[in-house]
Amino acid sequence: MIRVGIIGQGLVATHFAVGLEKLKNNEIPDHGVPLRNWLPYKYTDIEIVASYDVDESKIGRTVFDIALRDYPGNNIPGSLRDIVIRRGIHLNSMKGLPIKARGREEDKDLQQALLELIDEWKSMKIDVFINVMTTEPVEPIGRLGNLEKRVAEGDVTASQAYAYAVGLYCEKVRSAAFVNAIPSPIANDPAFIEYYRQKKGVVFGDDGSTGATPLTADLLEHMYERNRRVLDIAQFNIGGNTDFLALNLPERNIMKKKTKSGIVEDILGYEAPNYIRPTGYLEPLGDKKFVAMIIEYLSFGEFKDELYIVARINDSPALAGLLVDLVRLGKIALDRETYGTVYEVNAFYMKKPGPPGFKAVSKYYAYTKLLEWAGVKDPRF
Amino acid sequence: MIRVGIIGQGLVATHFAVGLEKLKNNEIPDHGVPLRNWLPYKYTDIEIVASYDVDESKIGRTVFDIALRDYPGNNIPGSLRDIVIRRGIHLNSMKGLPIKARGREEDKDLQQALLELIDEWKSMKIDVFINVMTTEPVEPIGRLGNLEKRVAEGDVTASQAYAYAVGLYCEKVRSAAFVNAIPSPIANDPAFIEYYRQKKGVVFGDDGSTGATPLTADLLEHMYERNRRVLDIAQFNIGGNTDFLALNLPERNIMKKKTKSGIVEDILGYEAPNYIRPTGYLEPLGDKKFVAMIIEYLSFGEFKDELYIVARINDSPALAGLLVDLVRLGKIALDRETYGTVYEVNAFYMKKPGPPGFKAVSKYYAYTKLLEWAGVKDPRF
Amino acid sequence: MIRVGIIGQGLVATHFAVGLEKLKNNEIPDHGVPLRNWLPYKYTDIEIVASYDVDESKIGRTVFDIALRDYPGNNIPGSLRDIVIRRGIHLNSMKGLPIKARGREEDKDLQQALLELIDEWKSMKIDVFINVMTTEPVEPIGRLGNLEKRVAEGDVTASQAYAYAVGLYCEKVRSAAFVNAIPSPIANDPAFIEYYRQKKGVVFGDDGSTGATPLTADLLEHMYERNRRVLDIAQFNIGGNTDFLALNLPERNIMKKKTKSGIVEDILGYEAPNYIRPTGYLEPLGDKKFVAMIIEYLSFGEFKDELYIVARINDSPALAGLLVDLVRLGKIALDRETYGTVYEVNAFYMKKPGPPGFKAVSKYYAYTKLLEWAGVKDPRF
Amino acid sequence: MIRVGIIGQGLVATHFAVGLEKLKNNEIPDHGVPLRNWLPYKYTDIEIVASYDVDESKIGRTVFDIALRDYPGNNIPGSLRDIVIRRGIHLNSMKGLPIKARGREEDKDLQQALLELIDEWKSMKIDVFINVMTTEPVEPIGRLGNLEKRVAEGDVTASQAYAYAVGLYCEKVRSAAFVNAIPSPIANDPAFIEYYRQKKGVVFGDDGSTGATPLTADLLEHMYERNRRVLDIAQFNIGGNTDFLALNLPERNIMKKKTKSGIVEDILGYEAPNYIRPTGYLEPLGDKKFVAMIIEYLSFGEFKDELYIVARINDSPALAGLLVDLVRLGKIALDRETYGTVYEVNAFYMKKPGPPGFKAVSKYYAYTKLLEWAGVKDPRF
Ligand SMILES: NC(=O)c1ccc[n+]([C@@H]2O[C@H](COP(=O)([O-])OP(=O)(O)OC[C@H]3O[C@@H](n4cnc5c(N)ncnc54)[C@H](O)[C@@H]3O)[C@@H](O)[C@H]2O)c1
Ligand SMILES: NC(=O)c1ccc[n+]([C@@H]2O[C@H](COP(=O)([O-])OP(=O)(O)OC[C@H]3O[C@@H](n4cnc5c(N)ncnc54)[C@H](O)[C@@H]3O)[C@@H](O)[C@H]2O)c1
Ligand SMILES: NC(=O)c1ccc[n+]([C@@H]2O[C@H](COP(=O)([O-])OP(=O)(O)OC[C@H]3O[C@@H](n4cnc5c(N)ncnc54)[C@H](O)[C@@H]3O)[C@@H](O)[C@H]2O)c1
Ligand SMILES: NC(=O)c1ccc[n+]([C@@H]2O[C@H](COP(=O)([O-])OP(=O)(O)OC[C@H]3O[C@@H](n4cnc5c(N)ncnc54)[C@H](O)[C@@H]3O)[C@@H](O)[C@H]2O)c1
Ligand SMILES: [Mg+2]
Ligand SMILES: [Mg+2]
Ligand SMILES: [Mg+2]
Ligand SMILES: [Mg+2]
Repeated sequence: MIRVGIIGQGLVATHFAVGLEKLKNNEIPDHGVPLRNWLPYKYTDIEIVASYDVDESKIGRTVFDIALRDYPGNNIPGSLRDIVIRRGIHLNSMKGLPIKARGREEDKDLQQALLELIDEWKSMKIDVFINVMTTEPVEPIGRLGNLEKRVAEGDVTASQAYAYAVGLYCEKVRSAAFVNAIPSPIANDPAFIEYYRQKKGVVFGDDGSTGATPLTADLLEHMYERNRRVLDIAQFNIGGNTDFLALNLPERNIMKKKTKSGIVEDILGYEAPNYIRPTGYLEPLGDKKFVAMIIEYLSFGEFKDELYIVARINDSPALAGLLVDLVRLGKIALDRETYGTVYEVNAFYMKKPGPPGFKAVSKYYAYTKLLEWAGVKDPRF
Repeated sequence: MIRVGIIGQGLVATHFAVGLEKLKNNEIPDHGVPLRNWLPYKYTDIEIVASYDVDESKIGRTVFDIALRDYPGNNIPGSLRDIVIRRGIHLNSMKGLPIKARGREEDKDLQQALLELIDEWKSMKIDVFINVMTTEPVEPIGRLGNLEKRVAEGDVTASQAYAYAVGLYCEKVRSAAFVNAIPSPIANDPAFIEYYRQKKGVVFGDDGSTGATPLTADLLEHMYERNRRVLDIAQFNIGGNTDFLALNLPERNIMKKKTKSGIVEDILGYEAPNYIRPTGYLEPLGDKKFVAMIIEYLSFGEFKDELYIVARINDSPALAGLLVDLVRLGKIALDRETYGTVYEVNAFYMKKPGPPGFKAVSKYYAYTKLLEWAGVKDPRF
Repeated sequence: MIRVGIIGQGLVATHFAVGLEKLKNNEIPDHGVPLRNWLPYKYTDIEIVASYDVDESKIGRTVFDIALRDYPGNNIPGSLRDIVIRRGIHLNSMKGLPIKARGREEDKDLQQALLELIDEWKSMKIDVFINVMTTEPVEPIGRLGNLEKRVAEGDVTASQAYAYAVGLYCEKVRSAAFVNAIPSPIANDPAFIEYYRQKKGVVFGDDGSTGATPLTADLLEHMYERNRRVLDIAQFNIGGNTDFLALNLPERNIMKKKTKSGIVEDILGYEAPNYIRPTGYLEPLGDKKFVAMIIEYLSFGEFKDELYIVARINDSPALAGLLVDLVRLGKIALDRETYGTVYEVNAFYMKKPGPPGFKAVSKYYAYTKLLEWAGVKDPRF
Repeated sequence: MIRVGIIGQGLVATHFAVGLEKLKNNEIPDHGVPLRNWLPYKYTDIEIVASYDVDESKIGRTVFDIALRDYPGNNIPGSLRDIVIRRGIHLNSMKGLPIKARGREEDKDLQQALLELIDEWKSMKIDVFINVMTTEPVEPIGRLGNLEKRVAEGDVTASQAYAYAVGLYCEKVRSAAFVNAIPSPIANDPAFIEYYRQKKGVVFGDDGSTGATPLTADLLEHMYERNRRVLDIAQFNIGGNTDFLALNLPERNIMKKKTKSGIVEDILGYEAPNYIRPTGYLEPLGDKKFVAMIIEYLSFGEFKDELYIVARINDSPALAGLLVDLVRLGKIALDRETYGTVYEVNAFYMKKPGPPGFKAVSKYYAYTKLLEWAGVKDPRF
């Protein structure tokens, strides 16, 4: 069994919960789950046992209630009535957003709150934690030595507090995996990589790779392989879900810009001028974001071609599907005791694959490496 | 040295000739040449020594004259004055097109004409032949035993006549490579594969992979790797060069349709309904074709996404750049005496890679195999 | 009251029937009905009293049954149970299509069948007939004198037979309007215009203007007004409904090509090379057709701009909304006794506005003329 | 004759100067000049006699030199050697931009500098001034009474100083027209409208309507006329010319946002959520900006359609072509002594047509009003 704890019962987490239960009930095929039924662990092995949030309108209610409100589909699986959303750690992750939010640490000190969490997790025997809370501005800790001090001073963000607590949980209770699907640098923070190695835990991250970013990576690979000279890349991203609302705040937007635009020089081998950042919020677009992109390049004989992409992408389901793999791969890494972070997994599933220092690669290349690591054969060959 | 003979001094051949000379004079960078300077043979090792056509307005004039007329750029390299366009074999390849065309075989029998060609080629010591004549309707010969008889009866098309003659040339004069960059099934014809093995020659083919087809292949790979269910693919292709005019005739259009739509089932693993064929001719678009494409797919939880591609692609330069590799790879195959056809080369450079029976693969996958075969290391890894 | 008879209970007619009843029940707002509540006749004044088809799978069943099967929405208005689909006149309108079809005239002579229809219509006191049957190849009759003879010899198509019968109905029973929303030339046929004048009937036509055609007309107006020189226009149209399947047959496709590409020279004042015709059928696209278009033009100083349009348009609802106006405008024309055809109505609602000899105009221009004719003031001014 | 003075010898002004001279030499057709040869004044009647800038790299050099450097075409008309670029009024219009700029008023007081300008203009007998300087943050003066005081205190921006000086010129020397083609509110400033009425001058403005804005206005009109309910509009605009660089600064970007997004509610009759602002700067795109737009709307029966626009628009030539009309229309207004501003001209040529209080209309509608005002008949009708 793989017992899963959700951090941030937002639209991605709700698509994950509803989609997973429907998969387990055989109500839907496994579209959007890359390693489908090729992994030793099946969908029925996964059980969501906990969900944490800081949004007062969610705490105390069941994932079923939230799905009823937010899930854009019907026949919500009844099993989601068993998961009551508990109060997480706030640390001001929701600053500047029109949401009433409150964390445990606001009526006791942070460490006290974290220990409380660990106890709850212990009773629920959580194997894999999924961090899909709101994007927040985070700087890496850097040296492991500073981590304890920073936590003691309460000078950490919510993502870092959760990552830290899960590490303690690994040490005190059982090895577990922390899937950091948001831009906060955890698998790109040397401090946390070393911390997870010592605590015998696994961390995947950072920032789930869905939508325009992986598509841009593979289009640039297509250009590289034909030795086409890319002159410029401009990418516009606009949606109407709460995540896009959050990303409208400059300090949060910059986090996405960092994780999204690193790929150009790594894949092309030269820095092509580019404009890549989440661009705007437009409520009626909802979760189906509008992506528009231009790539201009020089072909043989210096003739200029133009490639335009227009896409409508259901934003949250795209990440939810990847989480069904990341949960199972987290458990596999735990079984193999490959503690710390795993580049081969991060490279395919994350926008900014940890550990730091690795060049971004095309998702094609990452896919071949992923299959190798997971011991899976592509049935087409 | 690699001595090259061109069959069909059309827009692709003219972009190839002008671009190659400019490369050798260091006037332009090698954009659009995939294996750039990674191969043992350099651009200066390539010399175009012959060009054949059946268009009366081209025969007897130099490639320089034709480039002056058709090449959409200036400072045409003077060296192209040395190549006089000679009369090739017609066999009605230009039927239905508004061009006055006449082949050698029209005032002597076919075999006599072919022997004449072989003598010319012998004196010019041609190593690699590039077939970029007008798309013509061709059915494979099938059994090698029928090839001689069909040639004797004159019951072959121009592409087949050239492929046959180059085979005789390999036997009588020296091993050579036949690069079939047009849809005629040569490297997909068991008869010719066996013929080239016996005559100690190399054949690459069929139909150079440029524009929308390789892009579609890699986009479908992107879908496959995320287990997205592709619902439909529609691709429109419209241009204004003479090739698009030729492809406006149904019997020629069908040839492109065959080479273009084979990739869907091979790459996805299931047959997604698709509408892929060159669609129309619109003169003012010229060589910069307009491609519009839609791919609809189901994501996690059965939510439907839509991907639209709009592209303007300089058609002829795209193939010309690939020919700079195919000429050098042909020579490398000859040096290694790997006679017959070479799947690893065809898989990346051709829309319908011979030999028959191989499933189409993504161009990304073919690229890794190509580098292996060519003994080239991707400098990024 | 306006009593309406439908000819061809296809997807357009079903969207019209369901949408109209929902409007009358105030279940939906009147989006897609251009003259909304500005006309003297309200939605509640319209009553569908008859529906004719030749498809065996539809005859004898109610419009409710057909809507249940074909309408892509739910809560089908119960009132549609009152309309039983009756057998119309076939005259081979379904030749080449995978549908079992049979007309009244196949077991009695044509004139006998037509008189039967007129009797039925008399009992139902139909005011307005809507022709939305399958596109069929039709040549205009030309001289009124030949009409009677052609009908007597059975040498007319189904559209012409219906148009003829409604004319007789006008003479014998009461004035009525014939809304020809398909490409068959009726309002563009001098014979029928004169026939309707003499029989004191009204005919609107031909071919409802929805989707890419009116958009292209107004984009060309936008170019004309800025004196931009349009170099080329290419438009691709692909859908998956039965109409697109029918339009896949060349003889039917040509009908749409005629009605769709007349606008370029009329609006620009010069003939810009263009490629405009329904292009293909791709089943999974369903009724939401995919339109892709390019317009290239020269701006000030001869600099070239490019405009690309990509659209997903629900095909059948678009025409259904116009029919809600055309029914009311038909009645208004009858009230005013303006018999024959009415250019001011055709110019806005039809791709090929009758009578022949009128240049196509931008739909903006036609809209101002329509408001004037209908005596309606644009509330914005 | 119409003697013209340019304020801001940037890319728009250079396209205007080169294009106009080429028109007068019959070297190019008049594409991009809306009222072409329909006006009483011909191209040969227009003479550019002065050009003002504050960019040190331009002052003292001829328009020919600047065109040689910046105009993306060749054979620059020799006549441009006669116009030496003079130093204008800076008033910090270039703050925050990487350009060394200095105005006359920086070494004498503002009023002294303005009087100097008026003397120069008097000697050159300028009839029409064109303001195409860099977009600058400007708030309207409001009451005419404050204008004198604000100028005396030097508390005006460059656009306002120029507009003020031209008013004095009208009073002291001769009536003249001030064409304000940039976002600064002049024809939208009650103070300046009254000022120009009193000084017997003409002012057109504000912000030349080219590119995506007029296209959006006419597309929204297309939606309105079919009673389609627009759900959302998102428009991205990215280019690489200095104007886009300037618009990258928030305080300048906001000016464009105001002039660009006013049209939605005026044309649709309801406020549709929209995201319309110049979005970014990407150098290699140069003057050919990339525009991507989405418009979603509900059709009949509440079915949702999607319209996507992708465009490449040569930015500066588009405005330059309009200026050839605005100069002639300015002279016509002067001849008619219709002082103050002229809504019928502003409505077609400007993004934010003055005077304030007028609702934006579709450019189609504005076109019909313009022809009426100019006494021109559309040759098509
Ligand atoms: N395709 C995708 O949607 C995608 C891809 C990559 C990354 N992400 C990231 O995943 C995250 C979730 O996206 P979403 O669309 O579900 O956003 P969302 O706004 O719908 O959900 C975020 C949830 O996190 C909760 N939250 C905020 N602070 C918290 C805290 N301190 N502790 C616990 N919960 C907290 C919020 O209350 C909310 O319920 C975002 O950071 C987003 O950037 C999404
Ligand atoms: N990107 C690309 O342009 C591309 C990609 C794949 C394949 N191709 C194929 O390459 C070929 C050339 O394309 P193009 O744009 O240069 O076409 P083109 O029409 O410009 O040139 C074809 C030339 O072949 C000549 N020709 C015809 N029959 C001949 C014969 N029997 N012998 C000798 N010459 C003959 C014609 O006279 C003409 O000069 C076409 O078959 C095309 O389908 C092109
Ligand atoms: N936006 C639009 O969908 C649009 C726009 C303009 C014109 N049209 C035209 O409207 C017509 C209907 O479109 P649709 O999508 O509903 O097509 P459809 O195929 O769904 O319906 C056509 C119906 O006509 C019936 N029919 C065929 N021959 C008949 C006959 N002789 N008598 C009576 N019924 C007959 C068929 O059985 C079918 O039920 C087509 O001709 C189409 O070209 C549609
Ligand atoms: N289609 C279009 O390009 C378009 C449309 C509408 C409005 N506009 C506006 O037209 C203006 C010019 O556009 P551009 O592309 O030529 O910009 P540009 O940056 O190329 O030119 C602006 C010129 O104004 C000069 N300038 C700045 N401050 C000045 C001052 N105080 N006095 C005199 N000159 C001064 C600059 O030095 C520069 O030479 C901009 O405000 C732009 O927003 C352009
Ligand atoms: Mg998201
Ligand atoms: Mg070609
Ligand atoms: Mg239809
Ligand atoms: Mg500009």
